[in-house]
Amino acid sequence: MELPVNDEFYMSLALDMAERAQGQTGINPVVGCVIVKGGALVGLGTHLQRGTAHAEVHAVRMAGDQAEGSTVYVTLEPCSHHGKTPPCSDLLIKAKVKRVVVACEDPNPVVAGSGIERLRRHGIEVDVGVLRERALRLNEKFAKYITTKLPYVTIKTASTLDGKIAADTGDSKWISNAEARLQAHALRHRHQAIMVGIGTVLADDPSLTTRHERAEGLQPVRIVVDSGLRMPAEAKMFKDGTSPIVVLTTEQAPAERRRMLEELGAEVVACGAGPRVDLRTALEELGRREIGSILVEGGGTLNGELLQARLADRIVMYIAPKIVGGKHAPHNFDFEGIRRMADAITLNELQVEQVGDNILVSGKPAWPASSNGEKQ
Amino acid sequence: MELPVNDEFYMSLALDMAERAQGQTGINPVVGCVIVKGGALVGLGTHLQRGTAHAEVHAVRMAGDQAEGSTVYVTLEPCSHHGKTPPCSDLLIKAKVKRVVVACEDPNPVVAGSGIERLRRHGIEVDVGVLRERALRLNEKFAKYITTKLPYVTIKTASTLDGKIAADTGDSKWISNAEARLQAHALRHRHQAIMVGIGTVLADDPSLTTRHERAEGLQPVRIVVDSGLRMPAEAKMFKDGTSPIVVLTTEQAPAERRRMLEELGAEVVACGAGPRVDLRTALEELGRREIGSILVEGGGTLNGELLQARLADRIVMYIAPKIVGGKHAPHNFDFEGIRRMADAITLNELQVEQVGDNILVSGKPAWPASSNGEKQ
Repeated sequence: MELPVNDEFYMSLALDMAERAQGQTGINPVVGCVIVKGGALVGLGTHLQRGTAHAEVHAVRMAGDQAEGSTVYVTLEPCSHHGKTPPCSDLLIKAKVKRVVVACEDPNPVVAGSGIERLRRHGIEVDVGVLRERALRLNEKFAKYITTKLPYVTIKTASTLDGKIAADTGDSKWISNAEARLQAHALRHRHQAIMVGIGTVLADDPSLTTRHERAEGLQPVRIVVDSGLRMPAEAKMFKDGTSPIVVLTTEQAPAERRRMLEELGAEVVACGAGPRVDLRTALEELGRREIGSILVEGGGTLNGELLQARLADRIVMYIAPKIVGGKHAPHNFDFEGIRRMADAITLNELQVEQVGDNILVSGKPAWPASSNGEKQ
Repeated sequence: MELPVNDEFYMSLALDMAERAQGQTGINPVVGCVIVKGGALVGLGTHLQRGTAHAEVHAVRMAGDQAEGSTVYVTLEPCSHHGKTPPCSDLLIKAKVKRVVVACEDPNPVVAGSGIERLRRHGIEVDVGVLRERALRLNEKFAKYITTKLPYVTIKTASTLDGKIAADTGDSKWISNAEARLQAHALRHRHQAIMVGIGTVLADDPSLTTRHERAEGLQPVRIVVDSGLRMPAEAKMFKDGTSPIVVLTTEQAPAERRRMLEELGAEVVACGAGPRVDLRTALEELGRREIGSILVEGGGTLNGELLQARLADRIVMYIAPKIVGGKHAPHNFDFEGIRRMADAITLNELQVEQVGDNILVSGKPAWPASSNGEKQ
């Protein structure tokens, strides 16, 4: 199918470019920029890494003299403040571009419309909102972090049709199909950190690295929630050295266990007085360390505690067409539970698709307004 | 879209006609028949009720003299035996039709190809297999009953993403959305009986009638699996008199409870020595009573026992985009469980679709070949 040539034609390329850089910009947004002059592409740019040039800088540099009188497509409002680089709005003004098409405003409170204002004040025509939904979706993680200083939390599960993440013997190999498992590695690639509960470490001894098909991927920070510091020195993830390890615990954690883990190279962070890790404090601590996005990969207890604490931003579930039963088989979301069905946690902006014979369900959890929805 | 005029064009009409009659032919198949002569429809017929005329009889009657030299489209092989009506293959031979197009062979062992043979022996051209898959799907219930004398069992569930069918307080109103609940009533319409466990009766006191939107529907027989005869005299279903009630119990059931239920109009059937209802015996008893299809609507214990006994033929799950948690909240499939994930019960011929914000998952359960897959 031939796409019609219009604003969406160019903006979708800018979005594609930004999308491929997801995961590599840290707490920064992903941004793509396309410059068009006389009906031809003259500049392309993507923000690649925090502290390096913004998308507009790369694109204007590529366009050279042709930037003058051009139309610039950018997936996020050009910045107006001096951050690690000079403001991009000034750059576009200096380059004398004619028109700027912006997909969405910058949620960063220090920008929030001022970049667009600045361009307009200098006589540049600005259109905002082309492919806005897709652009907002792309920078959801950035938007949460920049406004709250808390990481964006995605919970990923692989379960059966009866909500189990293992048989009651603990056997879980495999629930989801090979394609779903590859997608899970792609999800890891797009988050700054992977988080699991100590139960998952003790049961499965995961390495929590990303593996892809004949291509390289990013290796996110590995985080283990471990109230009692039961993390074993023999854990596989201490062996490969691919990425940092953070162990979240409490102030009650035994000092000698803590020392042992630190000697193995882990950073141990006490989150609250205990006996359980205070997850809100934990996210604040991680945010302070500039971790802006976390993929949580279970188990059910950690998933359940995050839901109860209302700390999850997105849920991604791979459901295999299997039924395994088992009164004590572990669940995808293990928590005390909500008393009334009308108060259930609901997934909004629901997306459902088939991945081979697995079902992929994702959405944003929403909690009921009533405060008594949860059991005391 | 204009459909091309070909064998599928006429057969799909015959299938549509048969489909609408699902649920009203008892243990008989649903069959549609379309007769075409000189490029025009000249006869239409559907088998409407057991003991009344077959589809071919209605269609040939409508076609009158035009049946001679015509093409007959029929969704199931014309019968060759004297059942409650004379053989349809003889009728078509007598009417001197030219060609017969058959969607699928009759699974009834007393027919099984002999109807087609008979037509061919009389010089009629017969083509078999046009829209075969759709035709087979349509008469799955009939095919099971006619070959095993056991009813076809569909398990229908409405659950959350974490596999719960209620909150741990028992509250379940509502899990699925209004559209899914209407579809559930349409499912009831297409089965000869609805079955629930006594736990569901005690928890929800359902009337188990079918309710539709401004249209009438069939009222299937209501079956309660009640090992201890705990069925209360005040149960709602005793009040409306819309359809028979069968209570399945064991030989241990107290005689006075049995008498009480019989006085209220229920048929009480002892299935095995106890203490639990023997579900295989129960299906045999129901088959003997010419109940050829059952829609099981829970709860989780009955669903689980049917799976363990390998007595389910189809599973239809409505999954709401909700998470409710609860360590003791009831499950969609509550049974001892399978020890290895590789031995999980799998849904084959999987279909996944969205019904508003609910997810409809259905398929045919398949059990692992290994006999030690189940926990002893």
